[in-house]
Amino acid sequence: QESPLSKPKVLHSREVARTRLFRVEEMGLRFSNGVERTYERLVGFNTGHAAVMVLPLLDDQRFVMIEEYAAGTEDYQLSLPKGLVEPGESLLEGANRELMEEAGYGAHKLELLTELSLSPNYMSHRMQVVVARDLYEMRLEGDEPEPLGVHVFHFDQLPELVQRPDFTEARAMVALYMARDLLRSPQGDVQSTI
Amino acid sequence: QESPLSKPKVLHSREVARTRLFRVEEMGLRFSNGVERTYERLVGFNTGHAAVMVLPLLDDQRFVMIEEYAAGTEDYQLSLPKGLVEPGESLLEGANRELMEEAGYGAHKLELLTELSLSPNYMSHRMQVVVARDLYEMRLEGDEPEPLGVHVFHFDQLPELVQRPDFTEARAMVALYMARDLLRSPQGDVQSTI
Repeated sequence: QESPLSKPKVLHSREVARTRLFRVEEMGLRFSNGVERTYERLVGFNTGHAAVMVLPLLDDQRFVMIEEYAAGTEDYQLSLPKGLVEPGESLLEGANRELMEEAGYGAHKLELLTELSLSPNYMSHRMQVVVARDLYEMRLEGDEPEPLGVHVFHFDQLPELVQRPDFTEARAMVALYMARDLLRSPQGDVQSTI
Repeated sequence: QESPLSKPKVLHSREVARTRLFRVEEMGLRFSNGVERTYERLVGFNTGHAAVMVLPLLDDQRFVMIEEYAAGTEDYQLSLPKGLVEPGESLLEGANRELMEEAGYGAHKLELLTELSLSPNYMSHRMQVVVARDLYEMRLEGDEPEPLGVHVFHFDQLPELVQRPDFTEARAMVALYMARDLLRSPQGDVQSTI
């Protein structure tokens, strides 16, 4: 592998749009070879709160997914419970609350699995992925406009699941692949790797 | 599984911001239970051209990744070659051109692997993922501000790779997990599944 490249210098940066949810920044960059470029990126998406996604495991074979209306793609999509950590909450507390609100489960055991980005070239957004185990039934009222569908799948179904037109979200897929590999590795435990 | 839910009715929609790259739309939705909500979503990201990501396979064990400056996360990140299909190009032609521009390879064999979304709740964006095989050396001049790093990895390295701080892009991870599973399945061929 090559040695790390030298980061471009930021010549200027300014906000070019701001809405209730999104903020767009323009940056002028000079690369180490002297080439200058203007970039746009989405920043502050999620208003500075940490974003968390939760993979709820019923056991080493089965996991829980939610089904909700996705305004971006205008259809009902399968995904994993997710949301923003609230002020005063730890990451794992926020994960457990979202799990209770969206899937109707609490978890006695929550562990960080990984951190994912959306589109690092164009967005600063990052999301923490948490694995939830030792589940118990517990529903909290969330801000969902309608009750979410709750579905149970087996890791053996993963190859078919990722080809379904109503499951397209890359971050949830990564959580499933990564957890399945860890659960089926010789060590056999998610915790052993983190 | 439950029966499909009835989609919410769009009460209104209007553009609330537009920049060179991004467009934000506000939508008023009425869910089937009568609850009304205002949503914001990112639309028209990529200006209507199809987006394509390419997984270049050197053989059944090794793949090629690129390393480029990511303005969103402000660091150099590993990813797969990707870009927008240009007018007059087919999806696979666009995939092959991006592969030549970003990684210095052409491919005799290109096959669609899957379609991924970014964040279906908030973005309409979708990306086609293409597997490239039977590679040959071929570099085309792209619009990159500096030459991209090109690195070769083995699928056995995937568990370590997805934990690297300079590899966080969920869509590229999904491409790798999905292709590895297909290549190592009893059928042993990507093509057999598509």
